[in-house]
Amino acid sequence: MDIKRLQKQMAFLLEVDELKNVLRQTYVTNGSRQENDAEHSWHLAMMAIILEEYANEKQINTLHVIKMLLIHDLVEIDAGDTFAYDEIGHADKAQREEEAAERIFSMLPEDQADMIYQLWREFEERKTPEARFAAALDRLHPMLLNHQAKGKTWKKHDIRREQVLKRNETIAEGSEDLWEYAQAIIEDAVESGYLR
Amino acid sequence: MDIKRLQKQMAFLLEVDELKNVLRQTYVTNGSRQENDAEHSWHLAMMAIILEEYANEKQINTLHVIKMLLIHDLVEIDAGDTFAYDEIGHADKAQREEEAAERIFSMLPEDQADMIYQLWREFEERKTPEARFAAALDRLHPMLLNHQAKGKTWKKHDIRREQVLKRNETIAEGSEDLWEYAQAIIEDAVESGYLR
Repeated sequence: MDIKRLQKQMAFLLEVDELKNVLRQTYVTNGSRQENDAEHSWHLAMMAIILEEYANEKQINTLHVIKMLLIHDLVEIDAGDTFAYDEIGHADKAQREEEAAERIFSMLPEDQADMIYQLWREFEERKTPEARFAAALDRLHPMLLNHQAKGKTWKKHDIRREQVLKRNETIAEGSEDLWEYAQAIIEDAVESGYLR
Repeated sequence: MDIKRLQKQMAFLLEVDELKNVLRQTYVTNGSRQENDAEHSWHLAMMAIILEEYANEKQINTLHVIKMLLIHDLVEIDAGDTFAYDEIGHADKAQREEEAAERIFSMLPEDQADMIYQLWREFEERKTPEARFAAALDRLHPMLLNHQAKGKTWKKHDIRREQVLKRNETIAEGSEDLWEYAQAIIEDAVESGYLR
């Protein structure tokens, strides 16, 4: 056993514990508190297991999807969560996240730092079937929770139907079926008074 | 698309959001609050990705390990978290958890309910290389966090070195290397005054 290698891996695993302290705008379904990034990442990986049959491309590599989902928000440990509808926050998001990736991933042995970086870039670029499906789940997830919490986040930020539709239409690139479902959720949210 | 099937899957995915509200005895590394089961499950899956090279059996199926880790605590939504050193709580743990599995997993379409049930039983029985490695990570994780939080949980419950050694020796069945590392953590915890 290469103890120096293991120590680097352990230091990284303890560092990423901080993901549990990065709060999102979304609330847990009972509406009692904001969800954090670690919980969100777990929930997305569960969705990948249960919903993989709805990916547009059949025979996607589920392990690859799950790995991307588990690591996709690690950069927010440094860069923070940027709310989906925050246009100002999005202006320098890419640079903040690139710097975060550099610091956090490089705590790992070089081969693994490269692996995680490649997974993260793949997720961000949405060019592979796995990345498109993973990104679709990442968009769908807050909608499901928000609908369940009676539109708590939408109301708080005065978000409108058109914004939600525009923001999330890329779900269709990963899963036509889930985009169809998502649109039904949005219409129900409007009818129920959860969304303007 | 079979909408009834998708609705069952979505109902399950919303139900398991409750895992975020099941608190463990372990604290997040900064010691500010108790960790919940969803965060714990995410962290274990991260450990599986980074530490798979230390599994005793080479060529384990990492996707299978990760699936078990993501679902292994779902039964605690109904059965609650039983503290590792709570002997009374462990007396009826198996029955409480079996009932929980029945209720929660059967929200899914039958094929997926079976899949998740089999994954859960496999994890509990520790008979496959994947289950032994997954269980090793599940034992190692609270030790790492507890050591980082200066023994907060060990002190609170007056846990002693011998209990920690006995409870966790099964780590060796999944990974001799990680058990060696864990023992070093335990000795350091004693020397640092985190553990009696």
